[in-house]
Order: sequence, then structure tokens, then C-alpha cells
Amino acid sequence: MDFSVETATPTVVDSFRNTPDARLRGVLESLTRHLHDFVREVRPSLAEWNQAVEFLTEVGQTCTDTRQEFILLSDVLGVSMLVETMNAQQTGTDSTVLGPFHMTESPRRALGDSIDLLGGPRPCVVSGRVLGTGGEPVPGAELDVWQCNEEGFYDVQQPDVQPAGNGRGLFTADDQGRYWFRSVVPSHYPIPTDGPVGRLLGATKRHPYRPAHVHFLVTAPGYEELTTHAFVAGSPYIDSDAVFAVKQSLLVDFAESDDAEAAATFGVTAPFVHAQFDIVLEERA
Amino acid sequence: MDFSVETATPTVVDSFRNTPDARLRGVLESLTRHLHDFVREVRPSLAEWNQAVEFLTEVGQTCTDTRQEFILLSDVLGVSMLVETMNAQQTGTDSTVLGPFHMTESPRRALGDSIDLLGGPRPCVVSGRVLGTGGEPVPGAELDVWQCNEEGFYDVQQPDVQPAGNGRGLFTADDQGRYWFRSVVPSHYPIPTDGPVGRLLGATKRHPYRPAHVHFLVTAPGYEELTTHAFVAGSPYIDSDAVFAVKQSLLVDFAESDDAEAAATFGVTAPFVHAQFDIVLEERA
Repeated sequence: MDFSVETATPTVVDSFRNTPDARLRGVLESLTRHLHDFVREVRPSLAEWNQAVEFLTEVGQTCTDTRQEFILLSDVLGVSMLVETMNAQQTGTDSTVLGPFHMTESPRRALGDSIDLLGGPRPCVVSGRVLGTGGEPVPGAELDVWQCNEEGFYDVQQPDVQPAGNGRGLFTADDQGRYWFRSVVPSHYPIPTDGPVGRLLGATKRHPYRPAHVHFLVTAPGYEELTTHAFVAGSPYIDSDAVFAVKQSLLVDFAESDDAEAAATFGVTAPFVHAQFDIVLEERA
Repeated sequence: MDFSVETATPTVVDSFRNTPDARLRGVLESLTRHLHDFVREVRPSLAEWNQAVEFLTEVGQTCTDTRQEFILLSDVLGVSMLVETMNAQQTGTDSTVLGPFHMTESPRRALGDSIDLLGGPRPCVVSGRVLGTGGEPVPGAELDVWQCNEEGFYDVQQPDVQPAGNGRGLFTADDQGRYWFRSVVPSHYPIPTDGPVGRLLGATKRHPYRPAHVHFLVTAPGYEELTTHAFVAGSPYIDSDAVFAVKQSLLVDFAESDDAEAAATFGVTAPFVHAQFDIVLEERA
């Protein structure tokens, strides 16, 4: 029987019948059904199909060692955030997207070190505790943090300006689950607009901005891994993040502090900016 | 309100509300709905999402000037054939997929020329007429033809063996709509298996083969463009084309002929293989 609009989906689904891995078979069957439904609904012309092929090809070819345009595409379509949300822990700190800039290894640093290697003018301390859902400290939790600078650029975007590892650090919480490090207050910033995803945002009149945030990827033996951000409360674009990643529970005051004693504890001088962000991990089932 | 599994789709759909081009807006809204439905159905883990990102990135990066891995992916998922079928003319010759090998310009050739630049041992003549649906000839129709050689390789796959343009030709039908050219009988062949799409076929135990065929892309002023194949009747894999492109009406006898007079007409010597394939174009609306 000829391939037709009606037989297309069962025919392609059937072609996957011998897939040894049942999960792969299920995913491909679901992909086929939803992809075909999409095609039947929009009825792309051959020229449009060709445009889609060229767009996806360009997305792939825009990826480099330091840029992940397919993550960016997933981000602006809300797919990353949807996947993240479905995998989120239920009782701990809310999670949010990984984003496209977790590409390089963060340098290991000691608690209290600065991740701002260029000595920005406005010192900022980020501190908090890693806790279990029962409130118990999680000593030795690993915190991978990364953020852009005060101008809104990650190190990998400015290799001529920022040393590799600027704005990044891998910290180990102390025996009471505490962590603290010095940095600068990150800026809101546009996701990269010079590639195909940027063109898509332009064609749809969507702005490319993300509100200011510090990324966290937190792991500890016996606990679920957590990918999240501390968003700078009051940052522009908190209500219209280009990648849909804001959760109200993740808004953190980056507050001016005159506390000279606290400043001395953290190795800065008052006044300084202090963000306190406790992180709750769910026990692994 | 936080982004959630329930609010994800309306939120992302709404982000496209200011898209000036109504068609683009509609396509992106439909894409968002179907893509999110797929994600909600399969509930990918973060590791699976990452695998998907890496797979698509590799598909894009496998594309070159002479290889189109995203078309190949579209082909093996039946998407190319579905799009082609929905855009097909209703009353003329059946259409089928463009395939990933229509990448280079076919050299212009005179009727009767051979597209086999290497002088294969088994001469083959392909001839026919380009007609309108009322049976009238379409003089001056342009026929872009391309095919693999007797070993199953296109010129772009064997740049060290085949000269560029081998197996390709751009012909103009005569004043009675007739065309004819010399070639070799194409072989069935595997689609490229050394890239990510090949790995996908391997993981799903699908064979990569296409039945033997000659591609045609036919245009004429006032008529719909037609993309099709002449399949070699009796070729292996006629019933299980890896890209789902076979239509029964496109099976053509590549018949041994002892007709010395016909052979002389076509500039070959009997016995030769003769394929006759008439092409019917629909008038443009």
C-alpha cells in the first residue's frame, strides 16, 4: 500500500518495532506521532520544509565548544524549562534551567574565594547553607556556580576580556553545610542574538533578555542533584525571562549591607552587597 | 505565576503573540503545542534531554556542502514523504521525496547525452514524454535528473572516483515533450550510515537501504513542479524503502531490449536496457 497522509504514522511507527531498547522505541513512536500531527496540522509547503531544514542545520552548525545553540532553541521554546520542571524535586528548592553556558569546567575554589578574577568595583558576597528537607545540614555538598559579569557576559563570550573560569567556581560546603564566595552582582543580559535562535526571536518580536541570576548545580551523596538559579530580585525582565526560567521562590535580595563585622568575615569591606540563598536538597529515593 | 507543566504551553504560545507574520505565528504556536505534548508524554530525564540536544547538534554538524543529514533525519522519520504527499499534485504523476543528494547543480546536457561519464558496461536508456493532464505534450519542460551509479554511490559521495556531475543532467524536453538520455542502471544503496542518522537506524534495527531509482525534478511554465523517482521495478527493498518513498505507480520496468533500431536511435548498441517513464504535470491553478 502506498504511503499516504493516513498511513504515514502507523507505517513509520511500525518501522521501529524491532528496536531492542523499549524506552527508545517508545520515545521514537511518540516522536513520530507528535511530529506527524504537527506536520498534518500546519501543512508546510516544500519551501517551508526546506526553510526548517536550513534553520535546524544552522542551529547545529552554530554550536561550538563554548556555545550551544540547540540548548538555546530548547530554552526559548520552553522545552528546557518543561523538562526541568517535570524532573524537579518535589520538596526541596525549586529547580530551573541549566542554560547554554555550563560548557566549561568550573575551577575548584576554596570557600570565601572570589569568582570575580578581574576585581569589579562593587563587591558582592553570596552565602547560604545546603540543607536536607528535614533541615539537617549537608556537609561537603558540591556547589558548581557560574554567572555573567556586571556587563552581562560570561567568560566564554569574552575570551579576550575575561580569563577562562571568570565568574565560575566549584565549592565544597563546610561541615555545617555552609558555603560562601565573593563575586560581583550579575547583570541582566540578552541571550546570544547573532545566531539563528536570535533571528527567530527577532522575527517574533520577542526580546532576548534574561533577568540577572547566579547559576547553581548542587550535588551531594544520597541527595538529588539540583540545577537552579538565584535570581536578583528587582532585576529587569524578572516577569518576561526569554527562557521562562523564573520561579518566585528563587528571587533573592542582593542587599546593600553596612555590617562591618560581616564584611570582615567574608574578606570584603562594608558597604557590600550580600545575597543569602539557602538550598534544600531532597533525599534520593 | 510560576512556569509549570500546566502553564508551560499557554505561556510559550503567548510569547509569540506579537509575531508580525501570521503564518510564522501559527506554525510556532502549533510547534509549541505538539512539542510540549511530546515532552509531557515521554517525560524525558535530563540525561535524555541532553542526549537529544547532542544528537541534533551532531546532525547539524554532519551537514556539509555535499551532505544533508537533517534531510536524512526528516526522511527516515517519514516527515519528508508526508510533506511531499500533502503537497502533491492530485491528477498528475505521483511525487516522492527530494532526498539528501540534490545538493549540486546538475550539468546542462543535450537530449541523448549520457549522464554516465565513466562508461559503465551496461548501457541504459531512459526516455519518455512530459505531458499535461489532458495528454498534451509539454514542450521545453526542464528535467533535472540524478542517480547513483551501479555500485550505489552518488558523485558527491565518491569525489575521488566519480567526476562532479556524474549521474546528473539537466535536460530540456523537445517540442513534443519528449526526453531521452543514456545512463547506467542505478543500484539499490544504503543511505549514509556513518553519521548520527545511521546510528539511529542501527539502534532501531532498521536497515538503511533504498530500492534503486532515478530522481526527477520537472518544471515547466504554467505547470506545478514535480519531484519524483522512477523506481527500478523488482529492485531489492521496493517493499521496505528506508525513507518510505515508494509509490506503486512509480515502478518502471528497466527492460532488456534487443531492438537494434531503437538502440541506434538512442546511440547505443543492442542489447541495452530501456526504461520508459512518462511524466504528467498538473496545470498550475
